Amino acid sequence: MESIGEQNGWIRKVWPDLKPPSLSDNTADVDRLIKGLKKALHTENVTVDFSLAGKVSASLRRWNHHVGASVYEEHDGWHLIDISGPPDEQAIHGVALDLGSSTLVLRLIDLETGKRIDETSFHNPQIEIGADILTRIHFATREGGLSRLQEMTIDRLNQEVEMLSRKHGTGLESVVGMSVAGNTTMTHLFLGLDPYWICREPYIPVVNRPGLIPSCELGLNINRGAPVLVSPNVGSYFGGDLIAGILASGMNQQSDISFLVDVGTNAEVVVGNREWLMACAGAAGPALEGGIADMGMMAGPGVIDRVAIDPVTGEFRIGTIQDPGDAKAPQGQRPVGICGSGLIDLAAQLFLAGMIDLRGKFVEAACGDRLEEMDGTRHLVVVPARDSGTGSPLTLSQTDMDGLIRSKAAMYTILTTIANTVNISFSEIGHFY
Amino acid sequence: MESIGEQNGWIRKVWPDLKPPSLSDNTADVDRLIKGLKKALHTENVTVDFSLAGKVSASLRRWNHHVGASVYEEHDGWHLIDISGPPDEQAIHGVALDLGSSTLVLRLIDLETGKRIDETSFHNPQIEIGADILTRIHFATREGGLSRLQEMTIDRLNQEVEMLSRKHGTGLESVVGMSVAGNTTMTHLFLGLDPYWICREPYIPVVNRPGLIPSCELGLNINRGAPVLVSPNVGSYFGGDLIAGILASGMNQQSDISFLVDVGTNAEVVVGNREWLMACAGAAGPALEGGIADMGMMAGPGVIDRVAIDPVTGEFRIGTIQDPGDAKAPQGQRPVGICGSGLIDLAAQLFLAGMIDLRGKFVEAACGDRLEEMDGTRHLVVVPARDSGTGSPLTLSQTDMDGLIRSKAAMYTILTTIANTVNISFSEIGHFY
Repeated sequence: MESIGEQNGWIRKVWPDLKPPSLSDNTADVDRLIKGLKKALHTENVTVDFSLAGKVSASLRRWNHHVGASVYEEHDGWHLIDISGPPDEQAIHGVALDLGSSTLVLRLIDLETGKRIDETSFHNPQIEIGADILTRIHFATREGGLSRLQEMTIDRLNQEVEMLSRKHGTGLESVVGMSVAGNTTMTHLFLGLDPYWICREPYIPVVNRPGLIPSCELGLNINRGAPVLVSPNVGSYFGGDLIAGILASGMNQQSDISFLVDVGTNAEVVVGNREWLMACAGAAGPALEGGIADMGMMAGPGVIDRVAIDPVTGEFRIGTIQDPGDAKAPQGQRPVGICGSGLIDLAAQLFLAGMIDLRGKFVEAACGDRLEEMDGTRHLVVVPARDSGTGSPLTLSQTDMDGLIRSKAAMYTILTTIANTVNISFSEIGHFY
Repeated sequence: MESIGEQNGWIRKVWPDLKPPSLSDNTADVDRLIKGLKKALHTENVTVDFSLAGKVSASLRRWNHHVGASVYEEHDGWHLIDISGPPDEQAIHGVALDLGSSTLVLRLIDLETGKRIDETSFHNPQIEIGADILTRIHFATREGGLSRLQEMTIDRLNQEVEMLSRKHGTGLESVVGMSVAGNTTMTHLFLGLDPYWICREPYIPVVNRPGLIPSCELGLNINRGAPVLVSPNVGSYFGGDLIAGILASGMNQQSDISFLVDVGTNAEVVVGNREWLMACAGAAGPALEGGIADMGMMAGPGVIDRVAIDPVTGEFRIGTIQDPGDAKAPQGQRPVGICGSGLIDLAAQLFLAGMIDLRGKFVEAACGDRLEEMDGTRHLVVVPARDSGTGSPLTLSQTDMDGLIRSKAAMYTILTTIANTVNISFSEIGHFY
């Protein structure tokens, strides 16, 4: 994805060679710029949106026809994003957004070098409405609900982009492109499109390929001519996030066969190579995080993401996610819960330490006094109350463990089924993303 | 121009064949419509603007996938204007605007038959700022002046289109296209583009080819997706009105050579055929109307547009333009002035009656008591005070007559010069428009 902004990318800044007008060359301002851009871009098809005509005219005269033009390419040609004078030697920038239902990750990119300048991540502000997607889809049916959901995301994005821009001294006007990848529902909410039919048979989105949308139509405070590339979806349960994942992995350009797995509330699996791709999506059961374990929660400060068990002493070494803004807790905050990665780590360590058996059942002899009977089921104390950030012990119950085992089994079944469907064995898989 | 809206035109209404979605065909709403439109229009390239996505989705479901789509063609494919349900059997309409500096003529057209439904004309509301173009260009440099000029035109157009629509029971939503032709300055003011450099060497417009502009960007109260086709100009003194004139005359498709002349404050002349066209534009002197004669004025109610002189009695028969709203004056109102056509008619009749000689000088013997000495120059009384709508006699002075002769000579010179330049004689001219 780094290559997206390089000078062979679809967004560029060019410096057309423009001759000032004369009595023998009375081409109009806009048409003169178009002529220069055609030459600079080696194309026959350049358009300048009407809304930019006044600015083009004023800029050509102000800068005596020495201007820079940021442009983007769409299948049918090149389009002007903005025009600037020669003193404006700023690079052009883009932002890339991973639009998760839980977490948004925003990256600021130098579009002339393709290099990442900075990145920030934050909870999806729509969580205020509901942590799960169905609650948000339901909320969207209320009067004003859909636009409220869209606003929450756009407002927060505007704040975050502004913070990144201020931090790096790059003006918001210099952000001349954006790319967004999310699942189909998140994408619809981002675009202000009704997700009502996404979760109802036969599960039809409003749009598969939103294409390029001018930033100003979405209320984004970046350059108002900046195109926003919204990753296309293949259906309600196969979103633009997975399309972006395929492109980022490069599996669609390799000769050997790869697996790409994205597991959350739903599991999405893609298998294939540059000649063919097959995908499968479906409910994974409440696989990880908040769903599977009582102490499970979304990744965030104070959440356990690494576990190691000393094979000799049986001591638990717990790693938690540090609040990036809190430098005073270099060792991580006191644990308050566990995320998906932490849970998998924990299960693996418990098995290696002999504290669970092959079926995932707690082994009393190995667990010792970490095992407690609570609410009629056995719990393993991972973090005792005295070390916990919540004041209560963080425990993993046999029920939690059984759920994890079932999820793992479900995923294995999905992968096996897909592999059998396309008649390959796991040993033929070159890459696993 | 009538053919513009026929079903082979660039704006059409089509009824795509759409199958409702199912589990085995989960294409999204917008993409499903695009697929149907591609088939209906026999094209590979159909786009639906993002702003229409929500309406498309709602309409497909509301009308159970039986929808009509108004679309327009641009060089790179077809674009959706609007979508409607099957009960909406209304035709689609277009408006054509002749954007004169004095008079605006607006025509309502049935785009499915190409037939004219109605037409209205009215003074350019910018006359309030100044009758001549230079005054308006100057006014545009004031704070808010440019947008005021644009508003005056757009507001009036909205009123007139609404009146036409109400009169014929055609909704404003059904107006899905507009075409505008005017000189370069009028076009710039219509678009809200600064005309400052149009009248200053080297006379550079902001834009030559404005192309298609969505009506909503101009504040026009017609269908908000309707494309507005603004006739291109070739330069500051060769406007979209002349381009439209060439197309309307068809001279660019004929094998024999034609002359096209548009004379007002400026004279614009085009000569050529389907293989070549040459144009010439320049000040014509104050050719006609308000400029040349004391009693000259813009065409309007009560203005003389026809003159006949009885060769035997020498009686003047005067025809005036009737106020279309005033049915009580079937014979025309009392004359208040004379327009360009009337002036040419008058000169021709005076010559035929022997009242002027070959040089345009009044012949005393033939003019008799119609000739009066006023302010040191001879005047011919065309309408005596008792018959005049102004209370004063309407007269043509020798100075007026000399001016007309000079203008005629100037035009003859232009035509001769052009004919010589391209090495043709007047006898080779097949058509004169």
